[in-house]
Amino acid sequence: MDAYRYLILAEGSFGPLTSKTANSAVRYLGDRVVAVLDSTRAGSTVESVLGFGDGIPVVATLTEGLEYGPTALLIGVAPSGGMLPLNWRPMLIGALEAGLPIVSGLHFYLGDDPELQSFAESRGVPIHDLRRPPDDLSVSTGLARDVDAFVVHTMGTDCNIGKMTACLEIRRGLQEQHRSVGFAPTGQTGILIEGWGIAVDSVVADFIAGAAERLVLQAARGNDFVVVEGQGSLVHPAYSGVTLGLLHGCLPDAIILCHQPSRTCAYGGNGAYSWVTLPSLPEMIHACEAAVAPLRPAKVIGIALNTWDLSPEEAAREVEKAERETGLPATDPVRFGPEPLVAAVIAARDAQN
Amino acid sequence: MDAYRYLILAEGSFGPLTSKTANSAVRYLGDRVVAVLDSTRAGSTVESVLGFGDGIPVVATLTEGLEYGPTALLIGVAPSGGMLPLNWRPMLIGALEAGLPIVSGLHFYLGDDPELQSFAESRGVPIHDLRRPPDDLSVSTGLARDVDAFVVHTMGTDCNIGKMTACLEIRRGLQEQHRSVGFAPTGQTGILIEGWGIAVDSVVADFIAGAAERLVLQAARGNDFVVVEGQGSLVHPAYSGVTLGLLHGCLPDAIILCHQPSRTCAYGGNGAYSWVTLPSLPEMIHACEAAVAPLRPAKVIGIALNTWDLSPEEAAREVEKAERETGLPATDPVRFGPEPLVAAVIAARDAQN
Repeated sequence: MDAYRYLILAEGSFGPLTSKTANSAVRYLGDRVVAVLDSTRAGSTVESVLGFGDGIPVVATLTEGLEYGPTALLIGVAPSGGMLPLNWRPMLIGALEAGLPIVSGLHFYLGDDPELQSFAESRGVPIHDLRRPPDDLSVSTGLARDVDAFVVHTMGTDCNIGKMTACLEIRRGLQEQHRSVGFAPTGQTGILIEGWGIAVDSVVADFIAGAAERLVLQAARGNDFVVVEGQGSLVHPAYSGVTLGLLHGCLPDAIILCHQPSRTCAYGGNGAYSWVTLPSLPEMIHACEAAVAPLRPAKVIGIALNTWDLSPEEAAREVEKAERETGLPATDPVRFGPEPLVAAVIAARDAQN
Repeated sequence: MDAYRYLILAEGSFGPLTSKTANSAVRYLGDRVVAVLDSTRAGSTVESVLGFGDGIPVVATLTEGLEYGPTALLIGVAPSGGMLPLNWRPMLIGALEAGLPIVSGLHFYLGDDPELQSFAESRGVPIHDLRRPPDDLSVSTGLARDVDAFVVHTMGTDCNIGKMTACLEIRRGLQEQHRSVGFAPTGQTGILIEGWGIAVDSVVADFIAGAAERLVLQAARGNDFVVVEGQGSLVHPAYSGVTLGLLHGCLPDAIILCHQPSRTCAYGGNGAYSWVTLPSLPEMIHACEAAVAPLRPAKVIGIALNTWDLSPEEAAREVEKAERETGLPATDPVRFGPEPLVAAVIAARDAQN
């Protein structure tokens, strides 16, 4: 998987908010993305849609995408519920027939689909289901609280708001300061980028915390810091269970809260959650700290904003506002760099020692 | 399953705290339990071990148990992690060879075990895996908040503390007052007793709330009240994810908090969670209400105590103490009857209308 050059399938959904996996692949796998397939955006470039990604072309058909020399097809969207859209099947079969392995983060395991599996076998190419969990998970026992590494967990006011990106940017910032840091991927996109991890939203519900514990123990080996990718939100009606289980499994030393200033209600399902008003930053900080307090006195130590949809001036104002509201360092780690959060992490760790 | 007469396998674990499924089967399936198999307790009666269950014998071997005429073997314990203890396999094979169907609530699906499945098929008897979830679950969308029925959810300070029992006793009390009430079973024991339900701890983690939503919609049909069985606790390191997902999926109108006065730290795993001190009742009430508040302003309206290990005088004192500490009606619904909680549920519903 580490050497694949991807054609990314995002049919009908390529956009800043609607194709999370595709967008992170573009950001973090760089020149290993050769084209994006979305007939509704065909003819444009990735940069014109996302604001980054340079001249990677958006194409209308599989045939057109194959001209750019991909060595694998990556499914670049994660529809709510994780099922396989019906109209994708011909494209997946076409890709397998063309000899491309498929990398998928759907809840629906493509490798369990008899038709797709049969095409894959006949062409001798693999299907990688990123979300398929290990089959030997169990319940957590609290071991994560004993690791020597300083464990930082990104949480959010909502799902799909930048928790993995915040982790990766903080890791980069720590590495630039010559700190050893492990990243614990908990979702399909992180697993795609890192080549290991567990999609905690796909494990047996009783084993959410157990999976998180295992990830922390693994990421902590030989490292002074661990950053654990958060999932969902404590106030998201559909995903909150994963969020709390993950928090209690990874038992962090400190929390970074991720937020998108323009977001006012819970994300997903074509507006299905618009009845949920997101709490304010101070309310959410209190909720996160209260949720972990009975197990560990972890504090929120910084705010990571996602300001992709704001002007530079608006973004700077939102950073200031977040700092004023919370009394914590804030930044958009992509736009303005992760340095304030990196400094907060190092300071929190030094204060603990 | 509704007519089986059970020999209950609880080898090495039969006891008031360690064999939850067995104990509830004895309480709620009554004369359909013919014997309990636990060689370490053999020769005693169920009543002498549990304090109820009359003269049901505890036997040492499968052969001895078969003399009491069971028509099925029920696995009566749910080991943490849900695996199959190695030394049970010969007993399970022996039961199948004797023509007994097996009913199991383990996470490990016995029906997926080639050896057991092969014995079952050769004898033409079924294996019922109570925890196996439906294969068409998805994420919740918040539909549970729209049902007309008044939805009551039992939550707890800890796991294995009486949440299902509180539901069943409250249902009985409501029925005695000629109220129509549906019970939504969320764990293997409730499913065993009711013949339907979803073990929410066994679903794909992203679908916890979706499973709860489906249960509420089903239990609400034709009923004025729904009682939804809680799972785990918001402060249990291993199970909290299931607890919060269930709460946000069922979106209750009111909460009953379940507690065991003698319990001071989190239960399970041979003391693996003894590092977690349980919050006080007022703290736990606040935690439950705060967890659901962003989605629905549900309040805790009563306390269900589990006083099996206390004298009648101690139990009465604990009920008084809980009422004093919380300002809410309290009872041990098994020992003293559910009436105070039933009255609180009816009053809360009347206040809402």
